[in-house]
Amino acid sequence: MTTLADLRTPSLILDRGKLERNLKRMSARMRERGVSLRPHLKTAKSADVARLAVDGEAGGITVSTIAEAEYFADHGLRDITLAVGITPEKLDRITVLSDHGATITVITDDVTAARAIAAHHGEFKVLIEIDSGESRGGVSPDSAALIEIGKTLGPRLAGVLTHAGHSYEARGEAALKKVAEDERVAVTTAAQRLRDAGLQCDVVSLGSTPSMSHVEKLDGVTEARPGVYMFQDLFQAAIGSCTRDDIVVTVLASVIGCRPSKNQILIDAGAIAMSKDRSTATTDQDAGYGLVWDIDGNESLGALRVDQVFQEHGIVTSSAPLPFNKLAVGTKVRVAPNHSCLTAAAYDKYYVVDGGQEIVAEWERVNGW
Amino acid sequence: MTTLADLRTPSLILDRGKLERNLKRMSARMRERGVSLRPHLKTAKSADVARLAVDGEAGGITVSTIAEAEYFADHGLRDITLAVGITPEKLDRITVLSDHGATITVITDDVTAARAIAAHHGEFKVLIEIDSGESRGGVSPDSAALIEIGKTLGPRLAGVLTHAGHSYEARGEAALKKVAEDERVAVTTAAQRLRDAGLQCDVVSLGSTPSMSHVEKLDGVTEARPGVYMFQDLFQAAIGSCTRDDIVVTVLASVIGCRPSKNQILIDAGAIAMSKDRSTATTDQDAGYGLVWDIDGNESLGALRVDQVFQEHGIVTSSAPLPFNKLAVGTKVRVAPNHSCLTAAAYDKYYVVDGGQEIVAEWERVNGW
Repeated sequence: MTTLADLRTPSLILDRGKLERNLKRMSARMRERGVSLRPHLKTAKSADVARLAVDGEAGGITVSTIAEAEYFADHGLRDITLAVGITPEKLDRITVLSDHGATITVITDDVTAARAIAAHHGEFKVLIEIDSGESRGGVSPDSAALIEIGKTLGPRLAGVLTHAGHSYEARGEAALKKVAEDERVAVTTAAQRLRDAGLQCDVVSLGSTPSMSHVEKLDGVTEARPGVYMFQDLFQAAIGSCTRDDIVVTVLASVIGCRPSKNQILIDAGAIAMSKDRSTATTDQDAGYGLVWDIDGNESLGALRVDQVFQEHGIVTSSAPLPFNKLAVGTKVRVAPNHSCLTAAAYDKYYVVDGGQEIVAEWERVNGW
Repeated sequence: MTTLADLRTPSLILDRGKLERNLKRMSARMRERGVSLRPHLKTAKSADVARLAVDGEAGGITVSTIAEAEYFADHGLRDITLAVGITPEKLDRITVLSDHGATITVITDDVTAARAIAAHHGEFKVLIEIDSGESRGGVSPDSAALIEIGKTLGPRLAGVLTHAGHSYEARGEAALKKVAEDERVAVTTAAQRLRDAGLQCDVVSLGSTPSMSHVEKLDGVTEARPGVYMFQDLFQAAIGSCTRDDIVVTVLASVIGCRPSKNQILIDAGAIAMSKDRSTATTDQDAGYGLVWDIDGNESLGALRVDQVFQEHGIVTSSAPLPFNKLAVGTKVRVAPNHSCLTAAAYDKYYVVDGGQEIVAEWERVNGW
């Protein structure tokens, strides 16, 4: 039997029971609101997680890279939406997947690119990306460009897609509900304008974890694409998408130095192992670069946070005196991340536990592009 | 012939000519000052780079993870210092390398750990980590702990090691020269105290890229361990370790969206492809998350910077109007990183160019732990 005590540090730990709980909660929310869940696998990047995430769903998934699309298609998840603006140059690579039977959907918000996309020989569908307020990608739902792109895409046009990424900026339930409703209104407005122009618009896709955790109604929407809800993280807990107890992935680290005179310890999880994400700094629950829990993932050590990171070092401190008697060099701890998507990206696999310290499985990840 | 135009994006590009120039410059500096160069491979993590970096040197290398140690030993680089505080639990794994003929040196700053280290069955040497002002790891050179750890280590004691990481906080040549001299004084003082106590201290090791780029004398020092000098980056350019023209690694990215109304483009290099390092924000040359150059690595597009990052998106803007006629969707650009160690960590290989656009080699990297 392998346990957490046997693992190299840093390693990425996944709690299966919490994962299943998070998956069931979002599935139920989306089912109650009458939309398909097309889980975004940019966070998990794992076929094992994906199979649990689509259990009971229609089976479609969302990805953020072509490497993910190739990997998931290879693992039997073959209805794939690549939800990052496509370039015409990338179509050759991704349509290899449809040549082998996968259903591929890409997105664009660019008229010039749409012409090249329309002319491509491969088999795939296209959604028009709509800006629902984030101002990252997407055309405005009331723009002339929406109709122009729709007409340019011709029979490839399958619908519209938006992502209310500005839900990450919203604080408080009322603000999050408003973002979720703005997201819905933007994408359904765009869909209706396309239909009014005589164009086909079957897919009406939206979703972010914060907005889908707070949304009340999804009338006119066909599918939702949250991703980080699977793992959650300290940022999602801070803005109310979950509680800290819902956080699925943590970094197993070792204490590598003790400095009682400075009330700090060093751990072997630094900027690569945790990422330099500081998103909780924008909330009222600033967690530094992560919160340090005991090997069982419990908050028994006090309110310890990773205060500074270097490439392979994290400096841990607390406003209270650290319990140095529990933190000798070699002690293993679990660090909860600010942003699970970015922390997980440094690892090629998950060591899976189910509440205890025993490793019950190892699940691979697909990184890179 | 493969060229940059053929590559997937994002990809990591390495300019071999600039690499060789940076390597020669640091080798010459260290030779002039009479110390061995033991290059730190935490940045490059590549045997191909390592072989160039030790060319003409004694052959020893520095690493930041056991995974690096295993990889480099496997590639014939067998005199290895692991310059992150060791835990007794990790010794079993790393002494497998010395069992197979490698020379392994580890570091500690902890009396309790030193007892377990001294008692370990494996073959390895130990350096005592000295704090030369960074306040990360290490004992003070004038501490009682220094002598106690030295005595505890017994015949395993090989010397002392420090890293003036606070050179990253210093601004201006005078400040950097002072940090470099403080680093030298700290580590040589510690060495002398050990010798005065009748202990062996053959190795006197120090080094960071900023301090070694400015250091005048290294009397009493035996070896230097800079790392990022190989690749340099925007932060090192901003603090005067190099010029922007010395930056060796860039991220090849594609334009995936154009928004003239907001004077911004989107690229497919975001928080994973670039890292969320914002170190240039602490200098007078804030580069956002990176500067955007043309496909040849020239600054012909104007002063474009990555202003915001999302997992797979970067928003690029400039204080001047963007040259949209050169930035259609699909256009390839090269993004110079703030911190090459962290940006490179997202990639499993380098595509090597030699000034032009032709890919002249592919060099692998070792990531993870």
